[in-house]
Amino acid sequence: MSRPASALRALPRTRISLPRPAQCRRNLATQPPRPGAYAGPNKVFMPKTRIAVGIVFISALVYSMATETPTHAADEPSLADRDALLRKAPVTPSSPMRLRMEALIHGWQKRIVAELEAVDGKSFKVEPWTRPHGGGGITCVLQEGNVFEKAGVNTSVVYGTLPRAAVQRMRADHKALDLDPGAEGLEFFAAGLSLVVHPRNPHAPTVHLNYRYFETRDAQGRAAWWFGGGSDLTPSYLEEADAALFHQTLKDACDKHDKGYYPRFKKWCDEYFVNKHRGEARGVGGIFFDDLDSTNGTPDELFGFASTCLAAFLPSYLPIINRRKDAPFTEHEKRWQQLRRGRYVEFNLVHDRGTAFGLHTPGSRVESILMSLPLTARWEYMHEPPAGSREATLVEVLKTPRSWV
Amino acid sequence: MSRPASALRALPRTRISLPRPAQCRRNLATQPPRPGAYAGPNKVFMPKTRIAVGIVFISALVYSMATETPTHAADEPSLADRDALLRKAPVTPSSPMRLRMEALIHGWQKRIVAELEAVDGKSFKVEPWTRPHGGGGITCVLQEGNVFEKAGVNTSVVYGTLPRAAVQRMRADHKALDLDPGAEGLEFFAAGLSLVVHPRNPHAPTVHLNYRYFETRDAQGRAAWWFGGGSDLTPSYLEEADAALFHQTLKDACDKHDKGYYPRFKKWCDEYFVNKHRGEARGVGGIFFDDLDSTNGTPDELFGFASTCLAAFLPSYLPIINRRKDAPFTEHEKRWQQLRRGRYVEFNLVHDRGTAFGLHTPGSRVESILMSLPLTARWEYMHEPPAGSREATLVEVLKTPRSWV
Repeated sequence: MSRPASALRALPRTRISLPRPAQCRRNLATQPPRPGAYAGPNKVFMPKTRIAVGIVFISALVYSMATETPTHAADEPSLADRDALLRKAPVTPSSPMRLRMEALIHGWQKRIVAELEAVDGKSFKVEPWTRPHGGGGITCVLQEGNVFEKAGVNTSVVYGTLPRAAVQRMRADHKALDLDPGAEGLEFFAAGLSLVVHPRNPHAPTVHLNYRYFETRDAQGRAAWWFGGGSDLTPSYLEEADAALFHQTLKDACDKHDKGYYPRFKKWCDEYFVNKHRGEARGVGGIFFDDLDSTNGTPDELFGFASTCLAAFLPSYLPIINRRKDAPFTEHEKRWQQLRRGRYVEFNLVHDRGTAFGLHTPGSRVESILMSLPLTARWEYMHEPPAGSREATLVEVLKTPRSWV
Repeated sequence: MSRPASALRALPRTRISLPRPAQCRRNLATQPPRPGAYAGPNKVFMPKTRIAVGIVFISALVYSMATETPTHAADEPSLADRDALLRKAPVTPSSPMRLRMEALIHGWQKRIVAELEAVDGKSFKVEPWTRPHGGGGITCVLQEGNVFEKAGVNTSVVYGTLPRAAVQRMRADHKALDLDPGAEGLEFFAAGLSLVVHPRNPHAPTVHLNYRYFETRDAQGRAAWWFGGGSDLTPSYLEEADAALFHQTLKDACDKHDKGYYPRFKKWCDEYFVNKHRGEARGVGGIFFDDLDSTNGTPDELFGFASTCLAAFLPSYLPIINRRKDAPFTEHEKRWQQLRRGRYVEFNLVHDRGTAFGLHTPGSRVESILMSLPLTARWEYMHEPPAGSREATLVEVLKTPRSWV
């Protein structure tokens, strides 16, 4: 190497080139929605041959996350510094998974925002942000729209140090996580796309999606990585056709990779999105998976799976919102929707691991994490829908999850 | 003893004589509010000499919570069974603290409900309930009243077993808690009065109160006990006179027992009721204390302190609600109140230890625990009040707690 590692570390943080506000708005503006076309997010991983000057400084840095073997001395540059240099070149299939995931989620964020804007007629507010401890994200929110009461499509690409306590909690699921007795914590990278859409119409269901990639590295350079994600549907009124379409689309996506995925991840979803204190699922489910690591596939395979799932989102939800957004509804139905929104808040604040992780991570952007909360919610003491009502039918399904495909 | 312990244990659970619905409603109806008189809750601990027949069976059971020395063999009756027998006699100052606390909170529940009904003009719905695992409570809720959007005044008197994990968490604060390596958990008793009042008018503050008594006993009969409690005020618009009145009333109550209490418990309140993820207190505070055990005073002294605090509630809040309930307000002010209600939900669901304990205790009555949530709440992405506005003034005070007396 022509420059010592310390010189790399001294590079200003501003080289982490997250999209700037103007740039981001321009991108959204210049890429109109293409309804019906769900092939992929703007070909973000097409290889290009031009290599930026900065790359020469890091040619000796071997990226070894996939093999989980130590390669870096303790005084080597941080992941954030390395990635800042790598971002000077286009992302290719041989780029580190961190950058590939970043490109994937940024591509889909633009595409999904454009499609939802086409449905609503109003625009998302787009806010890039940086995190004092490293990294940042782009929060896109549409509030009090024509169709959507509140919709948020967020990406975050975060670098930091996981405190010892957090590492110990994570070790239950990640045997590869190792922390020396004297070490304060583990360096980590996390990139994810998170989306929640709360429509105005009580007959149109709320939808949630999250796909994420996580990487850690200890002082000896030993790495661990995993993928997580899923998507689930939360109606206030049960429409069996909607639940079936949503699940079938996700099943088709899963089946392209592994016939065992859908049944496994459908069950996981039914078990995860539960208000345990009420013995009631949040909604009619979908898929959920976490901790998919080298015991489940190669990084390429799992990245491919996450990509297919992301591509399945628009076909899983757009037909539903389009057929429900203009349904007539009563005050009574709106009130029931507000009570169900209260349950949504309960799950997110009491049980959701992602929210808890975010709220307890120093320097997190609270407004982006809590964007998942609905605009309005309601809690009535001892509200119980009358037996045989449509409201009671929904609650029955939430208490006993069904098969939909 | 004339009957073996096994015979006591075989006594039906129904002997736990929680007030029945009809009885409870009658009490509330026949004890009209006496505005201005805050002397005490219906003399519930006046000693009487009549001893119920059941008492002879337990005369040999020495109540030793205060000394924390083992007195009972492992095969002796449970706390619940013993108390069921003791309830046949009137509660006196020599009754176990469990029954004295139960009488105290039931007395104040009736009185506070009556006073709030007098303010509102509508009646509370009164619902006694029993817990499958032992004990029960009385939930009193007034929803969509004239003055109160939602008000709940709950008591609970619960017997059960604390799982090992819960005991270990509690040991941080309670050195006396001991659990044998082989034991599954600790027998516990908890009695408390919990109150939350959310007025309709955005200029009238929300108030919360909770006073509780906790006792545990291990298989060797070794006991531990402690008191906890407090009361705090959550305005949407800062009214300095209200905050000062509320704090002064609590300070006067504290000062009757220990001049060090108010500053210590005011600080504790400012540190506890905080939305840490926002760096913002829930409201203008009050007092909060927990884990007051034998290192802080005798059971009689601490019971006396809790009694004085309970008696301070009505004079700390009634003057405030009476002067704010009819204040004129705008749509804008109502909306700001709804956003503050959202913050209230965040604290209760994310940070409040009492809510977490309740929601994670098997057999808890979720509707009583979540009664503290407002009827309606709102979350707007990145809402920030304009500098210099009354809304911004409130937020400033929440970020930097003040002295009020």
